Amino acid sequence: MTTLSPTLELACDLIRRPSVTPVDEGCQELMMRRLAAAGFALEPMRIEEVDNFWAHRGGEGPVLCFAGHTDVVPTGPLQSWQHQPFDALIDEQGMLCGRGAADMKGSLASMIIAVERFVADHPNHKGAITFLITSDEEGPAHHGTKAVVERLRERGERLDWCIVGEPSSTTLVGDVVKNGRRGSLGCTLTVHGKQGHVAYPHLARNPIHLTAPALAALAAEHWDDGNAYFPPTSFQVSNLNSGTGATNVIPGELKAVFNFRFSTESTVEGLQQRVRAILDKHGLDYELDWALSGLPFLTQPGDLLDAVAASIHSVTGRETTPSTSGGTSDGRFIATLGTQVVELGPVNATIHQIDERVLASDLDVLTEIYYQTLVNLLA
Amino acid sequence: MTTLSPTLELACDLIRRPSVTPVDEGCQELMMRRLAAAGFALEPMRIEEVDNFWAHRGGEGPVLCFAGHTDVVPTGPLQSWQHQPFDALIDEQGMLCGRGAADMKGSLASMIIAVERFVADHPNHKGAITFLITSDEEGPAHHGTKAVVERLRERGERLDWCIVGEPSSTTLVGDVVKNGRRGSLGCTLTVHGKQGHVAYPHLARNPIHLTAPALAALAAEHWDDGNAYFPPTSFQVSNLNSGTGATNVIPGELKAVFNFRFSTESTVEGLQQRVRAILDKHGLDYELDWALSGLPFLTQPGDLLDAVAASIHSVTGRETTPSTSGGTSDGRFIATLGTQVVELGPVNATIHQIDERVLASDLDVLTEIYYQTLVNLLA
Repeated sequence: MTTLSPTLELACDLIRRPSVTPVDEGCQELMMRRLAAAGFALEPMRIEEVDNFWAHRGGEGPVLCFAGHTDVVPTGPLQSWQHQPFDALIDEQGMLCGRGAADMKGSLASMIIAVERFVADHPNHKGAITFLITSDEEGPAHHGTKAVVERLRERGERLDWCIVGEPSSTTLVGDVVKNGRRGSLGCTLTVHGKQGHVAYPHLARNPIHLTAPALAALAAEHWDDGNAYFPPTSFQVSNLNSGTGATNVIPGELKAVFNFRFSTESTVEGLQQRVRAILDKHGLDYELDWALSGLPFLTQPGDLLDAVAASIHSVTGRETTPSTSGGTSDGRFIATLGTQVVELGPVNATIHQIDERVLASDLDVLTEIYYQTLVNLLA
Repeated sequence: MTTLSPTLELACDLIRRPSVTPVDEGCQELMMRRLAAAGFALEPMRIEEVDNFWAHRGGEGPVLCFAGHTDVVPTGPLQSWQHQPFDALIDEQGMLCGRGAADMKGSLASMIIAVERFVADHPNHKGAITFLITSDEEGPAHHGTKAVVERLRERGERLDWCIVGEPSSTTLVGDVVKNGRRGSLGCTLTVHGKQGHVAYPHLARNPIHLTAPALAALAAEHWDDGNAYFPPTSFQVSNLNSGTGATNVIPGELKAVFNFRFSTESTVEGLQQRVRAILDKHGLDYELDWALSGLPFLTQPGDLLDAVAASIHSVTGRETTPSTSGGTSDGRFIATLGTQVVELGPVNATIHQIDERVLASDLDVLTEIYYQTLVNLLA
């Protein structure tokens, strides 16, 4: 039997713990034991049903944070998996298979091993290294990173740089890092009309007829041009429902659910105001119920992005591409501390899917990239 | 105890038979016995699950038909009724209460009593009197008047005039008669888009966004001006549905159900062509599933409308108002024989409702109006 690298050994240990959100199943204890041995001060933060921890090593100077989550999404039907999701097998193609292999227990293992090596090689490194680990990133996420960040903010912790272990790569490890994410703003629109019989439309007000031109205007609106880092803000209606089911009844109400993915060129208040203006212009009697999922954040080229790009180049020979595409991540919470945030992790092709997997050797490459980044920033 | 008039006695007998569509519960047998005694030739026509009958008395000359239905709509919750729906009580306000009192067992009783008196007074009347009675007007109506009319058409029966006993009056008996009805054309529109993630709208085609301007155009379209007898054609969307329920998914399909109530100024083919033109102009990938409920019909002023108006005036002193408003009725099937059709019946304020009722004395007035119409046309 082949001996596994330290990174793969730890990744397998973590994958074998079935930590479906918000359960941690001892993953964090395993990580904390390793970090304690490497000289970290540990601070477990269980908030409601969610296990989190904060770890700190070092003194004055710039603070680098590794952020990640130990929870994984549900497996789906077990019989659909080629290898059972919590067995953590390496198959004949050299793929590490299992739930969390890519998202993101592989990254967690790479971070730990990189930090262990770095503090052994540079016991008196500059600044400080920290970890912010949660067990609820895939779920409601109310008591995870968001809550921990609030505690850090209250006590005035400063985080200069943060590397989030989200699987950012698309084809080859390191080919893409995320240096920001669009904001996400959801809303339910309710339009009030007046129910009636289709044979007597003058006695009713059809909310479908009233709303159609307003929806057309919202769909045609150009919200912003985006910028060098973000595509233009997009508006999409995901659900639209009106009607009693009967074919001879004019309905009394219409509901539409829509969502903005917005760039840093638009603000929440600005988008809300413009939606109201369009609805008002069409004379609608309506209510809006807004839900802000996340503000956009952006890390411009600077210390962190330069250090990450240089380390990817030195380890793999690749020029990485910074990107702000895709969904939201916990990076949006950490960025509110004024922190430069970059997401860097393995290839994301199979995340959340049956047979989630990652090229095993990519995790060793990732360990090397994290190590070089530590060297570039804190050696 | 007060003695009831012959009309009210028969009306109560009919109401006490719980003939919810398509069940007749012996109503037609009761009517046929009375008509046989008055010299009518009877022809029961059970078609599938529906009882119908045709009755004929007379010889050469103009043919007048009384048309109606013995079935009633369901009662709804019995505990909501002040008097039980099949008890046929006359309350302290003089209202005959019960399911079918207004729609249309009251009219049936008035017709029978009027005809009995007329043939007794005028045994050698001109032309012929006929009855076309069904027990499925409120239901699917496939095997009711429509099917009977087809049989009459096949054997070349001529109907010059038809009085349908539908409750046409709005406030006082005879204040309104219906001399036509708009057509009704329904349709289900399916628009095909492409499902995707709201964060990646460039990979999807949102059918809500694509359809909104087309719906706005359909709702704003001026279909025709109507004419002296019909209001303009109206278009109403009754149901509109799209979306998976998830707030981050762009749906792949949209369904809209709409209905035209159309005047004699528009044709089915013309409306269908114009809808397609609007959808095509908006570049939609769509399907249309049409359902024609009824063509419009119109009885212009002439023998029948004059005779009815004169008899209403002579009995009540009222000038009646011909109208084409409201929903469809079996008159649309009879009109296809080239027949002049007028709907004349009691006040329709409570039809299909809990506590359906009609002023008892109105039914005696209605008997008198039917009798005078017979005199005006066939004495």
